[in-house]
Amino acid sequence: MTYPFLSGLRVVESSAFIAAPLAGLALAQHGADVIRVDMIGGGIDYARMPRMPHPQGRGRSLYWTALNKGKRSIAIDLRRPEGRELVQQLATAPGPDAGVLLTNIGTPWLAHEVLAARRADVITCTIQGNADGSTALDYTVHCATGYPAITGGGSLQRPVNQVLPAWDIACAWQAALAIAAALRARERSGRGAQLQLALSDVAFTTLSHVGVLAEAELLHQDRPSIGNHLYGAFGRDFGTADGARIMVAAISINQWKALVATCAIAEPIAALERRLGLDFSDEAQRFEAREEIAALVEPWFAERTRKEAEAALEANKACWGRYDLPTGLLAHDARVSAANPVFERIATPGIGTHLSAGAAVRASGWEREPTPGAPLLGTHTDEVLHEVLGLDSGAIGRLHDARVVAGAQEDPTA
Amino acid sequence: MTYPFLSGLRVVESSAFIAAPLAGLALAQHGADVIRVDMIGGGIDYARMPRMPHPQGRGRSLYWTALNKGKRSIAIDLRRPEGRELVQQLATAPGPDAGVLLTNIGTPWLAHEVLAARRADVITCTIQGNADGSTALDYTVHCATGYPAITGGGSLQRPVNQVLPAWDIACAWQAALAIAAALRARERSGRGAQLQLALSDVAFTTLSHVGVLAEAELLHQDRPSIGNHLYGAFGRDFGTADGARIMVAAISINQWKALVATCAIAEPIAALERRLGLDFSDEAQRFEAREEIAALVEPWFAERTRKEAEAALEANKACWGRYDLPTGLLAHDARVSAANPVFERIATPGIGTHLSAGAAVRASGWEREPTPGAPLLGTHTDEVLHEVLGLDSGAIGRLHDARVVAGAQEDPTA
Repeated sequence: MTYPFLSGLRVVESSAFIAAPLAGLALAQHGADVIRVDMIGGGIDYARMPRMPHPQGRGRSLYWTALNKGKRSIAIDLRRPEGRELVQQLATAPGPDAGVLLTNIGTPWLAHEVLAARRADVITCTIQGNADGSTALDYTVHCATGYPAITGGGSLQRPVNQVLPAWDIACAWQAALAIAAALRARERSGRGAQLQLALSDVAFTTLSHVGVLAEAELLHQDRPSIGNHLYGAFGRDFGTADGARIMVAAISINQWKALVATCAIAEPIAALERRLGLDFSDEAQRFEAREEIAALVEPWFAERTRKEAEAALEANKACWGRYDLPTGLLAHDARVSAANPVFERIATPGIGTHLSAGAAVRASGWEREPTPGAPLLGTHTDEVLHEVLGLDSGAIGRLHDARVVAGAQEDPTA
Repeated sequence: MTYPFLSGLRVVESSAFIAAPLAGLALAQHGADVIRVDMIGGGIDYARMPRMPHPQGRGRSLYWTALNKGKRSIAIDLRRPEGRELVQQLATAPGPDAGVLLTNIGTPWLAHEVLAARRADVITCTIQGNADGSTALDYTVHCATGYPAITGGGSLQRPVNQVLPAWDIACAWQAALAIAAALRARERSGRGAQLQLALSDVAFTTLSHVGVLAEAELLHQDRPSIGNHLYGAFGRDFGTADGARIMVAAISINQWKALVATCAIAEPIAALERRLGLDFSDEAQRFEAREEIAALVEPWFAERTRKEAEAALEANKACWGRYDLPTGLLAHDARVSAANPVFERIATPGIGTHLSAGAAVRASGWEREPTPGAPLLGTHTDEVLHEVLGLDSGAIGRLHDARVVAGAQEDPTA
């Protein structure tokens, strides 16, 4: 589902992998016309796993199609000067709502200066690994943050990687915000912007924003490795009699009271407070006694089935969640279904009809448009060349004949 | 460091914890005037760990001050009608760049309808746990995504929680983008917006955007639990002779060639390809043979010191990163220092001078302002009441006398 907040805005995206394509998706789902430019036959990420089954291994990528739904696709031979010229023209086409390039491909022919020579107020946003231009990706940035050394009870010698590409995701939304903010500034000042966003800067600035860096500098300490406990209050996963795991959190005082009420452990908790000389109405003191508290909570879960435990947690308005898998979510969690208005069923060429998410934000009263499935490469080649660059069918035909551009029939998965 | 992209914009933030405050910080670091409203004496998150050492335990929170730098603070008794009236007036003050509320406090007196009755085109953005209003936080949402069951070699029965509050972070940037996009729409259409963003929707829509949901629905499979390996290509951590761990990734073909060259394993790799009947120029086939490839890479790291390994990786332009801790980053990684222009040294009252991050984005040619440290609660009470609501010193004095508002001297950490 797409909101019309950014309708009229045109963004040219030349990208690969997650961060830049997800930034483009974010803009598209807020109403922008995002034109993804790809090499004829597909870029480096076009066949990334998982793929649809196919006898010759040419099934479409569920990864690529997920990140590129709701966009238009133009296929261009990016190795040739004529092809590069077309991309430069698209990115610098006139109009107050055009002239925006989103890329993570650090190539000289898409450099800001090159485009600014064609359109002085162009906005370019280039996503990088490190700000010096060296390579980095989610895993090689995350390892430096210290988190793997405190995940799953790990240590610096036995680190545990994070599976969610959280830095790519944070980078994507930051890029989209920076573009939206720079657009506002361009409307008011007439100035364009050369935006550069490094994945490592996204990670390390976040360490500052959540207080981890100040803690390291001022208190000379790194966060402790505490397994599945949450930091700074009380929360952990517990196992039920029938083998399910449930996460409970008691950060606010109300959440704490709800947990104590659910497990009916007010008396042993009061006794524990007296024995330890602590006051569990202070979240930091709950954190200090987390192992002792967990020992009081554990039997309650172990003696109950998942259903029984969940019903009691719900009745007491505790803060909890069930550990699940994507197949399980689809089978029984209404939050991940077309009954949730942020989801919709869409049709993706080469893949079929499936559940797909729009923007997570809900905007009451604003009309929404359904999201088109990710196009085959080059599906919009002709219409983009005509609409944006004003080329007539003769000129477009000559570009096809010279194999500078291609249409959907040249998609390798078509 | 703050860019002036959103300068002039005023956002009233009534919030707690991470997602909403980080959204406010994002807007502030792009130039908005963000006025954080807090209960006199501080809200539920004001004392969150870690705190500065203090004999009576009243040290300032490094968590709160990190998330609330660069904002103005007004302290109001939010339990009283006169206090609530002030917040409603602040959030609905006139002007094209005002009339924006950011909150994660689902209270009736800040409901969109209530504010829209005062200013029809108000933009409110309310962050929730679940969209039905029920409680959820990063941990109780993350457990449902399936990621804990595949982190650190975990399973649904032995899940591994994620320490980084990745969903809060993603939610924050999405809220900031939604506000920026809705502002653009308001400028063009005159319409306000009631934005609602649920943490669980942020997580589950992301599962769709990275292809995980389509995989579950169409291929009936969940991602495998593969320890520290990355999915879909080759990458893992390796130990050096002197006990360091290094993450290497070979997603692109160039990254793969660089790793093979670094470890000088072209011949055994070719032999492995022949033996398994695989072609490692295809990333999916590298993934298939990840254990066998890792066995060839492992000895190379084990025989070298960290320095030797890093020098060789660097010389071959491999994609790698060192596992580190925040204290280590500050000690020896120039990316986390004032030499990196996205960082600056700031002064925070009650804490002192320390390294702090601005926006991660760099905008060449746009002037930047230093970020003020997080204010004591109520530091800007009088100036905000005067500037925004036009109250004179007599009226402001009466609000103080009636204890409806307070200044910085009432901050419990002052």
